[in-house]
Amino acid sequence: MTNSVAFIGLGAMGYRMAAHLPKSFAQVMVWNRNFAKAEQHAAKYGTQAVTIEQATQADIIFSCLPTSAEVESIITQYPPKSGAIWVDCTSGVPESAVKMASFLQAQGAHFLDAPVSGQTIGAENGTLTVMIGGDAQAFERAYAAIEPFGGLIKHVGESGAGFAVKAVNNMLLAANLWATAEGFTTLKANGVDLNSALECINASSGKSAVTEMVLPQRILNREFPLTFALPLLAKDTGIALALAQQAKLPTPLLSLTQNLIQTANLTSEPDSDFSAAVKLYESWSQIEIK
Amino acid sequence: MTNSVAFIGLGAMGYRMAAHLPKSFAQVMVWNRNFAKAEQHAAKYGTQAVTIEQATQADIIFSCLPTSAEVESIITQYPPKSGAIWVDCTSGVPESAVKMASFLQAQGAHFLDAPVSGQTIGAENGTLTVMIGGDAQAFERAYAAIEPFGGLIKHVGESGAGFAVKAVNNMLLAANLWATAEGFTTLKANGVDLNSALECINASSGKSAVTEMVLPQRILNREFPLTFALPLLAKDTGIALALAQQAKLPTPLLSLTQNLIQTANLTSEPDSDFSAAVKLYESWSQIEIK
Amino acid sequence: MTNSVAFIGLGAMGYRMAAHLPKSFAQVMVWNRNFAKAEQHAAKYGTQAVTIEQATQADIIFSCLPTSAEVESIITQYPPKSGAIWVDCTSGVPESAVKMASFLQAQGAHFLDAPVSGQTIGAENGTLTVMIGGDAQAFERAYAAIEPFGGLIKHVGESGAGFAVKAVNNMLLAANLWATAEGFTTLKANGVDLNSALECINASSGKSAVTEMVLPQRILNREFPLTFALPLLAKDTGIALALAQQAKLPTPLLSLTQNLIQTANLTSEPDSDFSAAVKLYESWSQIEIK
Amino acid sequence: MTNSVAFIGLGAMGYRMAAHLPKSFAQVMVWNRNFAKAEQHAAKYGTQAVTIEQATQADIIFSCLPTSAEVESIITQYPPKSGAIWVDCTSGVPESAVKMASFLQAQGAHFLDAPVSGQTIGAENGTLTVMIGGDAQAFERAYAAIEPFGGLIKHVGESGAGFAVKAVNNMLLAANLWATAEGFTTLKANGVDLNSALECINASSGKSAVTEMVLPQRILNREFPLTFALPLLAKDTGIALALAQQAKLPTPLLSLTQNLIQTANLTSEPDSDFSAAVKLYESWSQIEIK
Repeated sequence: MTNSVAFIGLGAMGYRMAAHLPKSFAQVMVWNRNFAKAEQHAAKYGTQAVTIEQATQADIIFSCLPTSAEVESIITQYPPKSGAIWVDCTSGVPESAVKMASFLQAQGAHFLDAPVSGQTIGAENGTLTVMIGGDAQAFERAYAAIEPFGGLIKHVGESGAGFAVKAVNNMLLAANLWATAEGFTTLKANGVDLNSALECINASSGKSAVTEMVLPQRILNREFPLTFALPLLAKDTGIALALAQQAKLPTPLLSLTQNLIQTANLTSEPDSDFSAAVKLYESWSQIEIK
Repeated sequence: MTNSVAFIGLGAMGYRMAAHLPKSFAQVMVWNRNFAKAEQHAAKYGTQAVTIEQATQADIIFSCLPTSAEVESIITQYPPKSGAIWVDCTSGVPESAVKMASFLQAQGAHFLDAPVSGQTIGAENGTLTVMIGGDAQAFERAYAAIEPFGGLIKHVGESGAGFAVKAVNNMLLAANLWATAEGFTTLKANGVDLNSALECINASSGKSAVTEMVLPQRILNREFPLTFALPLLAKDTGIALALAQQAKLPTPLLSLTQNLIQTANLTSEPDSDFSAAVKLYESWSQIEIK
Repeated sequence: MTNSVAFIGLGAMGYRMAAHLPKSFAQVMVWNRNFAKAEQHAAKYGTQAVTIEQATQADIIFSCLPTSAEVESIITQYPPKSGAIWVDCTSGVPESAVKMASFLQAQGAHFLDAPVSGQTIGAENGTLTVMIGGDAQAFERAYAAIEPFGGLIKHVGESGAGFAVKAVNNMLLAANLWATAEGFTTLKANGVDLNSALECINASSGKSAVTEMVLPQRILNREFPLTFALPLLAKDTGIALALAQQAKLPTPLLSLTQNLIQTANLTSEPDSDFSAAVKLYESWSQIEIK
Repeated sequence: MTNSVAFIGLGAMGYRMAAHLPKSFAQVMVWNRNFAKAEQHAAKYGTQAVTIEQATQADIIFSCLPTSAEVESIITQYPPKSGAIWVDCTSGVPESAVKMASFLQAQGAHFLDAPVSGQTIGAENGTLTVMIGGDAQAFERAYAAIEPFGGLIKHVGESGAGFAVKAVNNMLLAANLWATAEGFTTLKANGVDLNSALECINASSGKSAVTEMVLPQRILNREFPLTFALPLLAKDTGIALALAQQAKLPTPLLSLTQNLIQTANLTSEPDSDFSAAVKLYESWSQIEIK
């Protein structure tokens, strides 16, 4: 039985995700490196700002951090108690999930890789897609704790499978983003009105989450709101590519995508949203996608 | 005022599109190279099977043929009368649209490039997306004639703009298809269940018409039903690429996509559906996407 | 028998090529759009600066112009006399060679596409490689006139074959250039001394004209001397790619090369040498190849 | 002072390399997993077939094995004595060189990564290019022992630098190979005689070791003699790519090259020479490069 839950990492996503937990749990501990943010969260949502030592002794510990490196660092310094389940919502590295699952298993605890999709709006509304790898029984036990912020909550395989699905999802996002940039620039260069073209394509077989959401809400309006940072997308495409390479798979299109996104990342302004990757392409074509 | 309409080209798409016209027009002429098909259509839908000379003298002439070459050949041999509007639903070449529009204008007639998206099911249901380039007034006049088989009917620009949007739409379809094949193969090679992954991705930012429809309905079930032939997709990606090259645009991702689809086309079995392009990739990875 | 020769186009290449002709011919006419250059050539090398009308009436007419468009324009305005041979040393378009050969044949004259390789130093020394397409007998007759500036003079096929070989040669140059830039940057990023690496690679299987000449003489020394302009290399890679596309060949590596060179071209400073294409890559990697 | 040398790994390269050592050393030990080959070498060249325990106690130990994994396995099982220098001629992984150098340093010994280029003919003639990473003093001491089979012997940097240069060399070989295949196929599809084209390109800026040697000696003659196996080239391109990725460098052209070579590797017949990678491309184009 779950008596206590903790949430570690109150970034743009984690802050909103943790806010849903008090609906289901009497005691919700939160911790953040910048501790003021934890205190702010406690004041606003009725959670408790605690030390990292306390947080890691909860029955269920959530983490949502920039990369697997930070997660590993905390887990190995502050291992959870026996019987605990660590639910890591970071967009992490599958290999790291395997390692952490094995490390926690040796202590009688469990590690679930449970990355989320849906961005800040999904975190806000508690409708995130959660793709989960790891022990099936631990998944069953943790399900109710995930539910407050989850829409679709899906067990996709062994440890690392959740991270793998997230990485491939984001790789497809990246591929669709760049292909869309090239395609719409081609249309504009040929005198086609982009809004009319977008309406047609969104009613046709070329549509994607990029044409339905990213292009109209971030690019055509030139807003590029920072909700998912470009360096994180570059990291995720790298994770997906590493998965292919470990399996000795040729992936020409995904490799090129990763190269283009990484180039965009290296040449972008600080604090760029992932959608701003198209600005690199605009600097080549001298055509704004608007 | 439109008194007569004709439909030229009763292939998988045209046959179904023309079937909707009698709802709105008393007289609907149809013509097909294999004339038996025209007679069958007449018997079934109350249209009239006529000669090509008669068909091309209608007020509004629709054509839906394999490529712009066939359309040009008919138009130049059998030019329509003054005041007529030729609505070409072929997935054609923008340059050809410009040429035909100019040729018909010299005769007091109009040419609209009006390719459709939605496949045979959309043609069946009369819900096709129709993206139209050419004279705005001709578009207004032709609108009612297009409505019986159209869902979204959109004027997107000058002559050629309709073909351009269609070509780019299909290029995006091709890019998404190949990226999805690489991505899902990567997941399978890493032990992830593809159906669970698909459910997650379709609730996430990596989704596209490929993940929502093509992958479950054509690939994962190993059916690859022939409704849109691979050589036609290869042709369309070539049209999109030519548009980029004429504009001197670099399009690394679309170029690679076109190369991959063309390779799939060259090495595929006859009568392959476009979705069977992934079989080339499967021959590389030795992993079936299922 | 050849009594008179003319040279049209005294650019960096043509000026030096024409300078060798007086060794073999009593009368050498020269013409240049900027006529002062023709007069300067006449004064320096004992040629005769003449009008375009006169130049095009020689027994053998050489041309060396930026693109096939300029050549076509002159040939069609000032067609040569019957029996003449037009030797076009431009890096031109194969299709144009076929057209010009047919146009001249109708007038009893011949067109040879005869692009050259070897850069200004080869033109200076009269050791250019000349790759020639067109009528074999015309090639035999023109051979002696080409010899003064040619090293290897080779008949490679029908009209257009010379241009095709040149375009593919330059495409390989472009591919080797970009691959070398990526490879040497990778070495530098890993702490390897580039000059030592270069010495090893030039004694190994990875060597090319780029590692043997372009890298040490233009890039590592940061000189990028303008002897072959980047826009011309971009044009040539476009010609090579068009040849592949007309043959429906997939060429993933050459397509990507052309896209990268075209991007470099679009984003380069004016008057950039072809070797300066690597500066685009340097702007991505933030590492200078030196 | 070097009193004894040993050579571990008598494959196609090692067998010939070790044959030169008796010129300079009184005592040359050899070891091979298939020991009969060591005995054959001893009988033919006056070396001594010894146990692995004996071989690894020489003053200078050479190794030439398929991959770094085999080298690591032997070194860690049979570490050399203090003062010894291990010269690893494998085409290995830079990271492994760093690890082995550190491991041996802790024992008072040295590890030099010293991969070779020049193929079996260079090994036969003792003219191999040897690119060496590691401690500069160890390099000086080992120089004389390398000389019998070396032509150019070059210190290129710290541990791993030798492997890095070799990997990048082979990546450039791979890129040039594939680009050449696409380019020459394009020429053939356009009716150009490949031997004439080759002669021109080898006298021009597009030439490389591929056009000068691989194409005429292995491909155009359809012999594809097995001297450097395709799986090893695929491995080497993977090493080069990993170097780029560790440095976060985008390398679009090298990535595509690696994907194509890996695809060729996955789909090739057993015992294919690296040059047979072009057969994959031939299966796409349906055109033999001959």
